[in-house]
Amino acid sequence: MPHIPLDPALPGISGLFAFRPETAAPLGQLAEVLLRGPSSLTVGDRELIATVVSNGNECRFCTGSHAAAAAATHEGGRAVVDAARASVDDAPVPEKTKALLRIALAVRETGRAVTEELVAAARAEGATDVELHDTVLIAASFCLYNRYVDGLATIAPDDQAVYDQIGKRLATEGYAGIGK
Amino acid sequence: MPHIPLDPALPGISGLFAFRPETAAPLGQLAEVLLRGPSSLTVGDRELIATVVSNGNECRFCTGSHAAAAAATHEGGRAVVDAARASVDDAPVPEKTKALLRIALAVRETGRAVTEELVAAARAEGATDVELHDTVLIAASFCLYNRYVDGLATIAPDDQAVYDQIGKRLATEGYAGIGK
Repeated sequence: MPHIPLDPALPGISGLFAFRPETAAPLGQLAEVLLRGPSSLTVGDRELIATVVSNGNECRFCTGSHAAAAAATHEGGRAVVDAARASVDDAPVPEKTKALLRIALAVRETGRAVTEELVAAARAEGATDVELHDTVLIAASFCLYNRYVDGLATIAPDDQAVYDQIGKRLATEGYAGIGK
Repeated sequence: MPHIPLDPALPGISGLFAFRPETAAPLGQLAEVLLRGPSSLTVGDRELIATVVSNGNECRFCTGSHAAAAAATHEGGRAVVDAARASVDDAPVPEKTKALLRIALAVRETGRAVTEELVAAARAEGATDVELHDTVLIAASFCLYNRYVDGLATIAPDDQAVYDQIGKRLATEGYAGIGK
């Protein structure tokens, strides 16, 4: 049961956005800019970063939702998402994507785990300044979202079909309408 | 040296805000609403939450800046801030503040560390739903800001006078103008 009274029809972060619209506005805008705004990273790769960080933080709601959004948007579909969750090193993605996912997993632990070596490896595969910036900020943002969702004990549905529906909605409509 | 080219005149998060205004807007707005918006928690108590979380995450820039902002706004001044950094249990603050700081420190580890017991203890001291929500979200937000600042290896000045100046500016002007 959630630690504060939330609408039971709105699982995960959507109930929190409805509870406190004043903070929902910037939190929704941040996700929209980072995950769906203009970028040289695909939406699928950005949702993949969100998924592996949420998975590492063991946040069921965020992992289920963003794995579904990544499966709906990544050219490799669900197979790539499941492989990246199991092991970034073995996932069937380009070396540049692996290098960015490794940076994201370092950020998940602590910002200080992002070494010169990790950054140089990503640059060697062609990562740009903005791609490095956005990878770090997406990973850091999911360290917020995951803690927000679990820190208030929001509801995480058991039914995979719910996550597939959320993922499809995020893939088509984005983050601006959450909780509305 | 930062991992990406940032203005050397803008230390910490201010250089990042100048580098990527698209994400600076919601990040600045989130801090403004959470730390300075209408609330039954004082600005001093909210800055104290930001400080103990940043201190726990060992983020020098954020700890220095928010400790200074807390010292400038909390009725107990610098003595309370230093005591809370050393030990929440021994800090000269009301039991309700201690209970909220314990929740914030749990969020810092993982959202799942916020137990029913921690929440019940805060409620027993009079904490409201919105205060519980905002405490969790402030703590989660600093898990973002700390990782963002350190994950891109931004500059953390050595001079305490710089932090005192930042703290004073945050206390009087808030978060909207950072990086501008």
